[in-house]
Amino acid sequence: MRIGVLGGGQLARMLAEAGIPLGLDFTFLDPQPQACAGSLGELITADWDDAGALDRLAACDRVTCDFENVPAASLERLAGRVPVRPAAAALAAAQDRLDEKRLFEELGIPVPAYAVVSSRPELAAGVESIGYPAILKTRRLGYDGKGQYLLRNDEDLEPAWRALGDHDLILETRVDFRLECAITAVRSAAGEIRCYPLTRTLHQDGILKLALAPLPVGEAVQAAARNMVVRLLERLEYIGALSLELFLDESGLLANEFAPRVHNSAHWTIEGAVCSQFENHLRAVCDWPLGETAARGVALMVNWIGAMPDPMPMLAVPGLSWHDYRKEARAGRKVGHATVVAADAARLETSLGRLRPLVDEHLAAVLPEMLK
Amino acid sequence: MRIGVLGGGQLARMLAEAGIPLGLDFTFLDPQPQACAGSLGELITADWDDAGALDRLAACDRVTCDFENVPAASLERLAGRVPVRPAAAALAAAQDRLDEKRLFEELGIPVPAYAVVSSRPELAAGVESIGYPAILKTRRLGYDGKGQYLLRNDEDLEPAWRALGDHDLILETRVDFRLECAITAVRSAAGEIRCYPLTRTLHQDGILKLALAPLPVGEAVQAAARNMVVRLLERLEYIGALSLELFLDESGLLANEFAPRVHNSAHWTIEGAVCSQFENHLRAVCDWPLGETAARGVALMVNWIGAMPDPMPMLAVPGLSWHDYRKEARAGRKVGHATVVAADAARLETSLGRLRPLVDEHLAAVLPEMLK
Repeated sequence: MRIGVLGGGQLARMLAEAGIPLGLDFTFLDPQPQACAGSLGELITADWDDAGALDRLAACDRVTCDFENVPAASLERLAGRVPVRPAAAALAAAQDRLDEKRLFEELGIPVPAYAVVSSRPELAAGVESIGYPAILKTRRLGYDGKGQYLLRNDEDLEPAWRALGDHDLILETRVDFRLECAITAVRSAAGEIRCYPLTRTLHQDGILKLALAPLPVGEAVQAAARNMVVRLLERLEYIGALSLELFLDESGLLANEFAPRVHNSAHWTIEGAVCSQFENHLRAVCDWPLGETAARGVALMVNWIGAMPDPMPMLAVPGLSWHDYRKEARAGRKVGHATVVAADAARLETSLGRLRPLVDEHLAAVLPEMLK
Repeated sequence: MRIGVLGGGQLARMLAEAGIPLGLDFTFLDPQPQACAGSLGELITADWDDAGALDRLAACDRVTCDFENVPAASLERLAGRVPVRPAAAALAAAQDRLDEKRLFEELGIPVPAYAVVSSRPELAAGVESIGYPAILKTRRLGYDGKGQYLLRNDEDLEPAWRALGDHDLILETRVDFRLECAITAVRSAAGEIRCYPLTRTLHQDGILKLALAPLPVGEAVQAAARNMVVRLLERLEYIGALSLELFLDESGLLANEFAPRVHNSAHWTIEGAVCSQFENHLRAVCDWPLGETAARGVALMVNWIGAMPDPMPMLAVPGLSWHDYRKEARAGRKVGHATVVAADAARLETSLGRLRPLVDEHLAAVLPEMLK
């Protein structure tokens, strides 16, 4: 079976790594000729809306994507010619922060206070109702902290408006959360749903830096998260893996946003769960039965951002697995990750004790925080 | 780092599957243009002794092999130009059953009774001293039961001699073993050695059909096997993964043969051990630290021989992982495998109960035997 993938980045690459043992072939469409999934299948270098390229994808047995901002027109060209999973409607729902919030509300999933902002007066009214601190965000095309402006007081309003005012915007209260977390779940073509345990996430400068799973919280919180993501998957008649990002504060879980694709917060599932998010996404896309989502122990994933460190000393850390996406080094870019899996939290702490002297000071400073 | 591989079969393919996340590139040399590792790297289609092809391999950072019968002259052409791991001497020791047995004896590793046979009278003398049943084997180039003849009584002597008499031969007693097993170990360039637990193996028609790990035996037997394989690795100054095939009978372990490469009996380590034999082989080849060889639970591997079955129903078996080598179907050919990993023997039995109705009758008949 040949899987067409819109996008050829590291998520596409890890999909292929999971799919090759399953006997699958891959065709990637990406505007970048150096797209890092390219060596694991056929790479079509073309723009997202290139008709000829889309026609070649339409000749695959299934189409999926490694990012959510695929132009609607591209998906329309594929529709009806090849099963596209997840479907265009699910991607569309995640492409606009306002639509996304309204969907959450409709499903009874709590969200932080927010206001729609399409003019300077609406921005003033928004902060009036929501208060400080708040975050002004573009409704579309934001990722990894891009297209966001933190508002701490009235003095921030004018520069924020100058930076983002020509976009459709949304103003959100900055949640005073205890921690951030995410739940990844997968729904098969037959409608079966399986959830991975909640993952604690830690961001630096808007980019995911660390993920710990399972998040050590009570079953009530795990169940609440499962309940939310199941409602979302069913409502979207979703096929594939999806991640719902959440804030956990004293009052419980609040939905931040969802990603209609495999997601960085669940990279730990490659070694840390019985069946990874990548394999389960492909199983769903191929109409196959889903694999088990149980954790194999306790896992911590570290993103390598900017440039890959030397693997040599780190590979000696017990239970550490290495992932080099083979991307060119560039500031702020995700170029790889490592996952440490241990049987329990105490053993994970021992491994992280060995990892800590080998990583940069920013990372070394936050590593112990994850185990609290 | 680019790894050159002599051979492009399923072992090379699984090496690449393990090496791609580590950021490695691969160049395969194989006489077959359809070699199944070819899609995961650069494939050089040429004979083993093709000078130009070997020169291209010599330009890699390391060279290793996916089978042991690489001609000595090919290895000589590479020697001194690129680190070849394991070294030619280790391959040579495994290429001749007589050299191999003498090496075992020298290391104090017990072997079944045997006799060298280079003439018809020596065959008669051999059966006189060893008795029936015995197996007449070619000293070189045998694998998967090929180049062997079972001698049950005097009537078998003449046809056996007619079939194999123009080769250098060895006559071995047929061990009345309780079970067959194998131990896989890996030695790093720095001399560190790690052993996987003993694996029970079950052959049909001379081909490995099932592997169960860890073999449920006492620590004394595990330690005896480790002791043997460690002596072998140290004596050969071996770099990489190696498997030692053993018989277990009432008197203990007897060495059958060793494979100086990654081995079918340890395919379960991909999902069933912390770090697989494939990744550990590459870590050794690359001068990196070794990964952990502990089992993650209990694993059973099933080889698919001849043709791939339909993955669809089997993927619903809890803990089952699928490996399709993408080889053309052919009788007696290994075309893929599946591994079922469970937390303990009881849960493995439940999964195998679900697998059993989905496999052919030969396999269904022997599956329960492995759990005894």
